[in-house]
Amino acid sequence: MPYDYEKDGTAIYRQSFATIRAEAELDRFDPDEEQIAVRMIHAAGMVGLEQHIRFSPGFAQAARAALEAGAPIFCDARMVSEGVTRARLPADNPVICTLRADGIPELAKKMETTRSAAALELWRPKLAGALVAIGNAPTALFHLLNMLEDPDCPRPAAIIGCPVGFVGAMESKAALWADQPVPCCIVEGRLGGSAITVAAINAIASRAE
Amino acid sequence: MPYDYEKDGTAIYRQSFATIRAEAELDRFDPDEEQIAVRMIHAAGMVGLEQHIRFSPGFAQAARAALEAGAPIFCDARMVSEGVTRARLPADNPVICTLRADGIPELAKKMETTRSAAALELWRPKLAGALVAIGNAPTALFHLLNMLEDPDCPRPAAIIGCPVGFVGAMESKAALWADQPVPCCIVEGRLGGSAITVAAINAIASRAE
Repeated sequence: MPYDYEKDGTAIYRQSFATIRAEAELDRFDPDEEQIAVRMIHAAGMVGLEQHIRFSPGFAQAARAALEAGAPIFCDARMVSEGVTRARLPADNPVICTLRADGIPELAKKMETTRSAAALELWRPKLAGALVAIGNAPTALFHLLNMLEDPDCPRPAAIIGCPVGFVGAMESKAALWADQPVPCCIVEGRLGGSAITVAAINAIASRAE
Repeated sequence: MPYDYEKDGTAIYRQSFATIRAEAELDRFDPDEEQIAVRMIHAAGMVGLEQHIRFSPGFAQAARAALEAGAPIFCDARMVSEGVTRARLPADNPVICTLRADGIPELAKKMETTRSAAALELWRPKLAGALVAIGNAPTALFHLLNMLEDPDCPRPAAIIGCPVGFVGAMESKAALWADQPVPCCIVEGRLGGSAITVAAINAIASRAE
């Protein structure tokens, strides 16, 4: 007997988000933040993630305004840039990952850092007003914070800081939260990753559920 | 003051895996399974994930032998196919995602299912002996199980079944675990997703840590 299952994508989303809203503790979020948090929980398959999500004041508004103005989205990993649903973007925004750009391995060696961190150097010319999404590498988030210590470095509009893992993830996100060079969103601790980061971008890009 | 942090990728991996092995309960896995589980925990940033990971007997060996023999890897989502580290593959294996192939939206409409499920129809000609990795869509895993109910459908060598979420994820993985049409690996319940799935592929592809 073949398996029978829900095959309607719209119904699947609706039912998923209803389950999340029934189970998760979302009271502390404003409506814009709530929509982002719900989608992050959805991507993680994990009610309880909301306890680790932090939005700085005005993050959702700044990030959404940037995308509506046509800002690019800079991503630290191809799994992030590939995950963004192009049809949700309000202004056909460029989605850019420079990790595999020419010269990055050599630049990383010269800078004595990871390729993920070195790749951010290519963001500078278009960083002003951009949405930055770090969903994989703690070294990329640390390097971004160090870049932004230079007052001459262009300021992005907002930063999603969700690197994942056991070395530097918790520390780099705590550093972003302490510095708050621009409005930002983080997942505290070890949790994070490309799927959660993509979910935040997709929620910011469009209110459609 | 710029932040100082670990910038050596090799040291980051070593320290991460040491932390996971110190904290996670890995005793019930054999050495091949343990290596896969450690990398899945690493991708999720979550000690405790191991409690939800199930390997059917011979899964790791079947999946690794398939890749060493040059088998393709079929993925349900671009975030999965993009995440596979090509340099780890033992035989320059093709990594294939058909979700954006020509005609998939029309085929999905005709089949009255999701694009994720319809895209699997394009796998049939090369499915024999392949490694299948479902890291996103429960509908894709259910459709795969239904395809394999047809005795004329080619058999993959092994299946990684890790769709994520709130509708069908738990159920489709339970169905795979009950059927076991070929050796398989699942993450029980709602957890799963592209990062965890990619981690399993990358661990199978190479023992290098």
